[in-house]
Amino acid sequence: MANKISRAVIKRLPKYHRYLKELIDRDIKRISSKELSEIMGFTASQIRQDFNNFGGFGQQGYGYNVDDLFEQIGRILGLVSQYKTIIIGAGNLGQALANYSSFEKFNFSLQAMFDLNPRLIGLNFRGVEVLDVANIEDYLADHKIDIAYICTNKEAAQGVADRLVDSGVKALWNFAPVDLKLPADVIVENVHLIEDLFTISYFIKGAKK
Amino acid sequence: MANKISRAVIKRLPKYHRYLKELIDRDIKRISSKELSEIMGFTASQIRQDFNNFGGFGQQGYGYNVDDLFEQIGRILGLVSQYKTIIIGAGNLGQALANYSSFEKFNFSLQAMFDLNPRLIGLNFRGVEVLDVANIEDYLADHKIDIAYICTNKEAAQGVADRLVDSGVKALWNFAPVDLKLPADVIVENVHLIEDLFTISYFIKGAKK
Repeated sequence: MANKISRAVIKRLPKYHRYLKELIDRDIKRISSKELSEIMGFTASQIRQDFNNFGGFGQQGYGYNVDDLFEQIGRILGLVSQYKTIIIGAGNLGQALANYSSFEKFNFSLQAMFDLNPRLIGLNFRGVEVLDVANIEDYLADHKIDIAYICTNKEAAQGVADRLVDSGVKALWNFAPVDLKLPADVIVENVHLIEDLFTISYFIKGAKK
Repeated sequence: MANKISRAVIKRLPKYHRYLKELIDRDIKRISSKELSEIMGFTASQIRQDFNNFGGFGQQGYGYNVDDLFEQIGRILGLVSQYKTIIIGAGNLGQALANYSSFEKFNFSLQAMFDLNPRLIGLNFRGVEVLDVANIEDYLADHKIDIAYICTNKEAAQGVADRLVDSGVKALWNFAPVDLKLPADVIVENVHLIEDLFTISYFIKGAKK
């Protein structure tokens, strides 16, 4: 089933998950698609359509059980598993990601960081050590890693990605401003920060007209 | 015209801009939509459609002039202006963004950082000082700021956003995991990192099936 769901729907699921968590924190047990639409800014029909992709979740006229829905969406998002992660590139961005404690909260568990800079190798962030990237193949032979965060510069990113994939890493979170060329079975998500900024400048320019 | 272009097209423009820059660096002067489609992974028809939103850019059967196209897309993205920016929240993420030199390269010029932590106030990153967020209204009365990057925690984000908007800031780049409630004329782009990670875990789960 997973492959038939559109990327737009998949991208909305984490947002549902986040809002449902807030409802749970506020001790709300049940919510209609109309109420959910009001707090989330999606239409109620959009919400029902999204959930229909996964078999519905709700009963007509009765609304959704918040705990159940949260748990089911978490399950669909794969959040019941534990993911072991590494960070390649221990510069500012790598360090910022290493210090994001909310990743751990959702079972994305940082195992190691890698860099080639001797001044960074041996440092540690929240207890996670920076290792020499020259030894990454050895490390990956001994440690099963689910996701690698690529925080290198643009020039190094493809080479590092190739080495990771050759050593069996199947999912990459790429922060380098480059589109990686990867085998079809490797999962990759890109965060191109500068392109986000360009979207802002586009709209600023439009607003000035 | 700007308002009629779909968000999906706008989101693709920075990618065109990036690839065209690479062509310029490789001293390539002219490219067909077919060649561009091969390096970018969009279909040639997609590319022609995208460009038609902005009046075309090319001549049938002749291809695009790379320098012209780069310049025109840069102009559409508003990259001919200079943008003055501030960072709110000088923790790891704020510091990482302050150290991104490529933002400056594209005329997003960081003016100041703000925090409430006395251990951070007074530090500086690449010459940009961390100021006390308590004084942000005074600062904004004296300095015209185009974009504020919100790097606070979830709890502080809305309050800070309200203060910025009340002081005349019209564009926010929000990294806090919350959807800000803002007047309709305020531009906001969100980077929800944890939601990106959930997309990866979704696909990992699917791949394991």
